[in-house]
Amino acid sequence: MVRTILAVMLCALFACGVGAQAQQSLNLMPLPAKVQMGSGQLLIGPTFSVSIAGRHEARLDRAVEIFLGQFGRQIGMPPIDMQVADSANATLVIQAAGGTKGVQEPGEDESYRLDISNSGAKLNAPSTLGVMRGLQTFLQLVQTTGAGFAVPAVLIEDSPRFAWRGLMIDVGRHFIPLDVLRRNLDGMAAVKLNVFHWHLSENQGFRIESKKFPKLQGTGSDGLYYTQDEVRGVIAYARERGIRVVPEFDMPGHATAWFVGYPELASGSGPYQIERQWGVFDPAMDPTREETYKFLDAFIGEMAGLFPDQFFHIGGDEVNGREWDANPKIQAFMRAHDLKDNNDLQAYFNQRVQKIVAKHGKTMLGWDEILRPGLPRSIVIQSWRGPDSLAQAAKQGYRGLLSSGYYVDLMWSAERHYSTEPLSGAASSLTPEEQKRILGGEACMWAEYVSPENIDSRIWPRTAAIAERLWSPQDVRDVNSMYQRLSVVSDWLDGFGLTHNSSYAPMLRRIAGTNDIAALKVLADVLEPVKDYTREETAPAPATSASPLNRVVDAVRPESATARQFADAVNELVGGTPKPGSEARIRKWLSGWRDKQVELQPQNVKSLLLKEVTPISQNLSALGAAGLAALDYLDRGEPAPAPWVAAQLALVEQASKPQAQLLIMVAPSVGRLIQASAGQPAPSPLPAK
Amino acid sequence: MVRTILAVMLCALFACGVGAQAQQSLNLMPLPAKVQMGSGQLLIGPTFSVSIAGRHEARLDRAVEIFLGQFGRQIGMPPIDMQVADSANATLVIQAAGGTKGVQEPGEDESYRLDISNSGAKLNAPSTLGVMRGLQTFLQLVQTTGAGFAVPAVLIEDSPRFAWRGLMIDVGRHFIPLDVLRRNLDGMAAVKLNVFHWHLSENQGFRIESKKFPKLQGTGSDGLYYTQDEVRGVIAYARERGIRVVPEFDMPGHATAWFVGYPELASGSGPYQIERQWGVFDPAMDPTREETYKFLDAFIGEMAGLFPDQFFHIGGDEVNGREWDANPKIQAFMRAHDLKDNNDLQAYFNQRVQKIVAKHGKTMLGWDEILRPGLPRSIVIQSWRGPDSLAQAAKQGYRGLLSSGYYVDLMWSAERHYSTEPLSGAASSLTPEEQKRILGGEACMWAEYVSPENIDSRIWPRTAAIAERLWSPQDVRDVNSMYQRLSVVSDWLDGFGLTHNSSYAPMLRRIAGTNDIAALKVLADVLEPVKDYTREETAPAPATSASPLNRVVDAVRPESATARQFADAVNELVGGTPKPGSEARIRKWLSGWRDKQVELQPQNVKSLLLKEVTPISQNLSALGAAGLAALDYLDRGEPAPAPWVAAQLALVEQASKPQAQLLIMVAPSVGRLIQASAGQPAPSPLPAK
Repeated sequence: MVRTILAVMLCALFACGVGAQAQQSLNLMPLPAKVQMGSGQLLIGPTFSVSIAGRHEARLDRAVEIFLGQFGRQIGMPPIDMQVADSANATLVIQAAGGTKGVQEPGEDESYRLDISNSGAKLNAPSTLGVMRGLQTFLQLVQTTGAGFAVPAVLIEDSPRFAWRGLMIDVGRHFIPLDVLRRNLDGMAAVKLNVFHWHLSENQGFRIESKKFPKLQGTGSDGLYYTQDEVRGVIAYARERGIRVVPEFDMPGHATAWFVGYPELASGSGPYQIERQWGVFDPAMDPTREETYKFLDAFIGEMAGLFPDQFFHIGGDEVNGREWDANPKIQAFMRAHDLKDNNDLQAYFNQRVQKIVAKHGKTMLGWDEILRPGLPRSIVIQSWRGPDSLAQAAKQGYRGLLSSGYYVDLMWSAERHYSTEPLSGAASSLTPEEQKRILGGEACMWAEYVSPENIDSRIWPRTAAIAERLWSPQDVRDVNSMYQRLSVVSDWLDGFGLTHNSSYAPMLRRIAGTNDIAALKVLADVLEPVKDYTREETAPAPATSASPLNRVVDAVRPESATARQFADAVNELVGGTPKPGSEARIRKWLSGWRDKQVELQPQNVKSLLLKEVTPISQNLSALGAAGLAALDYLDRGEPAPAPWVAAQLALVEQASKPQAQLLIMVAPSVGRLIQASAGQPAPSPLPAK
Repeated sequence: MVRTILAVMLCALFACGVGAQAQQSLNLMPLPAKVQMGSGQLLIGPTFSVSIAGRHEARLDRAVEIFLGQFGRQIGMPPIDMQVADSANATLVIQAAGGTKGVQEPGEDESYRLDISNSGAKLNAPSTLGVMRGLQTFLQLVQTTGAGFAVPAVLIEDSPRFAWRGLMIDVGRHFIPLDVLRRNLDGMAAVKLNVFHWHLSENQGFRIESKKFPKLQGTGSDGLYYTQDEVRGVIAYARERGIRVVPEFDMPGHATAWFVGYPELASGSGPYQIERQWGVFDPAMDPTREETYKFLDAFIGEMAGLFPDQFFHIGGDEVNGREWDANPKIQAFMRAHDLKDNNDLQAYFNQRVQKIVAKHGKTMLGWDEILRPGLPRSIVIQSWRGPDSLAQAAKQGYRGLLSSGYYVDLMWSAERHYSTEPLSGAASSLTPEEQKRILGGEACMWAEYVSPENIDSRIWPRTAAIAERLWSPQDVRDVNSMYQRLSVVSDWLDGFGLTHNSSYAPMLRRIAGTNDIAALKVLADVLEPVKDYTREETAPAPATSASPLNRVVDAVRPESATARQFADAVNELVGGTPKPGSEARIRKWLSGWRDKQVELQPQNVKSLLLKEVTPISQNLSALGAAGLAALDYLDRGEPAPAPWVAAQLALVEQASKPQAQLLIMVAPSVGRLIQASAGQPAPSPLPAK
C-alpha cells in the first residue's frame, strides 16, 4: 500500500514537470509519468538502425517488426532497410530485462524508460510489454524538422496508473468486420490501451462460431459472425500489440439471438426471432432448469478453450424479468428456493454461472447488476453506474472497472470523458487498499448507430483522451493541453488505417449526391448528434438494425472542433481577453455560416438526405447574421436595442433545439455574443477590428 | 470475321446514341456499348430486394453477395436487410443463362443486358461474368435524388470490345502487401478489367514462395514475399470478381534476385546480391546449361500448379547480354549451335522455355523481345514498343496485347493514355482476322517509385480511362466527357477502399510536419511529377529500393486537375469564348498562387522535405503575379510593354523547367495569358470582369 501511495505521489511530482515544458513541445498521448527534456535531437537519417540487445523472445521480435513497419509508414520509408541486429551500436537499442507471460495478465509490468540523446536512443523495460508501450511513445516523438525527421532528446520514465485500460466494442447490434477490429486494435495499442473487450452476443446477433452449438451463429447471426479461426487470429493480433482479449457473452438477458436456435434456453415459450429494434427485451434464460446450466457448461467450456484470457465476461445487465414473471414454473421455483424477487433469481443464476466459469479456470466479470450477496470476492464488477457504485463494490472487497462516463456512443465531448475520474466521488475516500481494487476502466462502443463506415469516428479520437485518463498520473488534466495533443494524435492515428477522419468527406458526398460538399461541410462542421439516449427518444420512427446509417447525424463528428474553437474565441472576446485577430476570425466564421448555407438550399431538392437538415441550415444562416449584427453593435460601443436582442435570443433558443437528431453547437456562443451586445459590460475594452 | 466487323459497326452506331444523352446524365465508366434512356427512375427504398432467378452457381451467388456488400456500403445501408431469394418479384432480378468455366478464359462472354424501369430492374447475361459486369454498371447508376437513392430508367446492352483488359502490378521492385492488391482487384472489377498480371520476380526481389526452391524467396526477397496460401487467396479473390490472374516470372534477365540463392542459374560467376538500384543489370540466366532448364522445368511446374490460368508470362525483356559476352563457355556454345548473336541465344532460350511451359499445359506470354523466329504461333506477345510492333506480330500470326501507352508509372495524363488505341498505326490497316489477334491491353504499374501508400494514386483514377479504351466502342473518345466521368468515378472508387484520394492529405501533412497544409496543398495541386524516365535522369543521387518515398514528388498526383481546369479557362478566355465568371475564376487561382505561397516560406525551415520545393513555391507565386498583371493589361485593352512581356516569358520558361523532379503544370497557361496581353488579337472581345 505504501508503495502505491508513493508511486502516485512521485507521479504527481513528475507530472508537474511535464506540464510546463513537455505538454507544449511534445504531442504525446497519453502523457508519460515523467518527461525530462534534454537538449538537441536525434536525427533519423538513412543509417538509422534498431537492435534488440540482450534477451529475446518471439513476442519481442514481432513487436519490433510491427514497430518498424509502422515507423516506415509514418516517415515514408520502405521497410527493407531497417535491419534488426544484436548490437549496442544501433541508433535505437531495445532491451527487455524479462519476457512476458504466456497469457497476458492485468498488472504485468508495462513500464519503460526511453532515453534519447542526439547520438542515440535506448529503450529499456522490465518486459516486452514495456517495450511495446515505449515504442509507441517513440513513434509519437517523431517530428519533422528542417534537418529531416528527428526525435527530441528526452528522458522518459513511464508506467501506467491503472492496469486495466480497455475498449469494449459491441459487435452484436451491428456486426463489425475483422479489418475494422484490427485497425482499432492498432489504434488501441497506439494509445497504450491493453484490453479489447469483445461484446460478442446480443439480442440482435450472436457473432461467434460455436462448434458445439452451431445454431447459435447459424440462426442467430444473419450469417454475420466470426469463425473460431478468425477469433484466434484477432487474439493473436491483439497479443502482438500487448492487448488482452476478454470475451463477453451477455446472459441471462440480452440473449434473444441465442434463443432463435435454442428456444429451450429461454424462459418463454418461443419461438424467437432475432431482435431488429433497440432496447431492453423480455426474453431471458431460464435460471431454473438444469439443462440451462448443462448448456452453459458446455458452451463456456468451449469458449474458455478459445479465449486464453483469465477473465470471462458474462454481461448480466438489464434483465427486465417479464418472462420470469410470466412463467409459473419459474415462480414456483423461486418460492421453493426462497428467492424473493427477480434480483435474487438472477443472483442465483450468477452463482451457478460463476461456478461454471471457475470450473473452466476463468475469473468471472460482469456488469454492476451481478454484485449481489453470495458471489466470491474473486469476481470483477464493470460499472456502468459510476464511481460510487464502484466504490461500494471495492468496499465489499470486489475488484472493479469504470465504464460509466466512458460510453463513447453517448456523443459526449472528449473533455467530459477526460474529466471522468475512476477515483472520484465515493471512490476518492476509499482506503488505499480499497482503491487498489479499482483496476481501471473501459471505453464502451455500443453499436446501435454504428457501421463499419462510421464506427472509427465514434471511437476516435475521443478514446485517446480516455486512454490518457487511465494511463497518465491523476493530475494530468489540463483540458487545453489535452485538446491540442488530441488533434495531433487524431491525425497520427490515420496512419494506422483508422477512418475517423477519412470517412467524413465520402459520407458528406453521399448525402449531398455531389462532390461539391463545401456548403454542407460548413454546416456539418458545427453540428453534433444529440447526446445520451436522445437519439432513440427523438426518432420519428423506431430505428432498427436494418436502418440505413447514412444520414447527417451518422456523418457528423461526436464533437465539433469548430464549435469549440468558436466558443473559445467568443469567450475571450466577450470576456475582454481577445487574442489578436480573434474578432476577425469570429466574423469569418459567422459570415461563412450566413452566406454559405445559401448554396445548400438548391442542393436540398436533389437529395432526400439533405432535406431534413434544411431547417438547420437556415437556422445556422440566421445565427451567422445575428452574430455579425451583434458584433457590429459591440464595435460601435452601442447597446443593441432590447426588442432586437429578444428576437435574436429567441432565434438562438429555437436553433438550440435538436432537429433531425442534430444540435447546432455554435448556437450558445452566438447567444453569448448577442447578450454581450445588449450592453453587458466587458471587463476590458474591445479591440479594434 | 464478318461478325467482328458487324459488331464494331453496331457498336459505333450505338455509341453515337450514347454520346448525346447518356454521357451527360450517366457517370458510367467504361461507357456501355449501347445506352437507351427511359423515363423515370427506380427508387431504392426500404423494400428493395434482389433475387437470382433461374440458374445458380456458387460463383454467381458469391458475385451477388459481393455486390450487396458494396451496394450497402455505397448507400450506407446495413447488409442484413438484403435478402437474396428466388423470386421474379424482387426489385432487381438477376438471371445468368449459363455458368462459367472452372478456369476463366479470355473471350468468355462478358455481355449483359440491364433493363431498368420505374418498377424494377432486370439484369440478364449469358454467364455469371456478364452479371458481374452488369452489377458494376448498376452500382455506377445509383444516384442521389430528392426522393432518395435511385437508378434511372435505362436499357443498357453492353459487351467489351477487347477480351483481355488487364492491370499489371510490379511487386518485385517494391513489395506490395496483400490488402493493397485486394483493394486494387476491387477497383479493377469496378471498371470491368479482367486480368491481373502479377509481375512476381525482379532484380530487386523474388516475391513468391517456392516450396521446391525455397532459397528463391528465402534469400531473394528480404522476407517480403507471398506464401502459396496467400497466392491462392488472391486468385480466389480475383476469380470472385471475374478477374484472371496471370503470373509473370521474368527470365532470363531481370532475375538477379533468383541468383542470390541459386547462383548456378546465372551466366556470371557470382555471388549475387539483391539489386538495390534501378535499371537494367548484367546478370542473366545461363541458356547453355541443361541444369538451367531442369530447374525451370521444376519451378514452372510448381507455379503452373499454383496458378490455374491458361497463360504463363516469362517476361523476356531487356537482356543486356554482358554476362553472356563475358562467359567463354557461353560463347563457345553459341558458335557450336550457330547462334549469331545474343538475340539468337535468347530465342534459343525462349524456345526451350516455351516447351517447358507447354509441357505444363500453359500458353507462353512474353514481352516484345520474345518475338523471334522459331516460336509457335500459340504464344502471346505483350508489347511495350507500340501498336506497330503489335501489328507486326499479328501479321505473323501471333496474338498480342498492347501495353505501350498504358504505363501508368510514366505520369502521363489520362487523356494521353485514353488516346492510345490498340488498333491504331499499322494495326489499323490489319485485316479483320489479324486485328482479332490483338486481344486487348494492360495498364502497367512499374514500381520503382511506389509504396503501399502512394501506389493507388499512380494506378487510379487514370487506369479507369484505360479500362474504358479497352471496353467501350472505339469511337467513344470524347475527352471532356471522359474527364467529367473520371472525376466522379475517382470518388466512387474511394468506396472500394482505394486510397488514391485519401492518402494525399496525410502525405502532405508529413511533408509539412504540421496539420496546416493549406499553402502546401495550393502548391501541390498544380504540380506533377516529371514524365517518362526523367525522374531517374534528374535524380541528384541514384534512387534505391530503400529510398524513402515521402517527397513532394511522391505525394502529388500524376495529373493535376487544377492545371487542366485552369488551362481550359485560359484557353477560353484568350480564345475569346470565356464562360460567365471565368475571368473571376482565373483571377482567384492566380491570386491564390501569388499570396498563399508566402505562408509556405516560414514552414520551409521547419521541414527538410519542404525545402526542395521552396524555389518552386517562389516560382508559382511569381507566376500568379505575372498572370494577374497580364489580365490587368487585357482588361484595360492596352498591350503589355514588350520588355515586361519578355521578362515574364523568361520567368515562365524558367518556371517550366523540372525542379525537385516536379513540374509546375500551370506555367504554360500563364504564358498564354502573358502572350495574349502582349496584344495578340483575340477572336472576340474580352468580357467585362
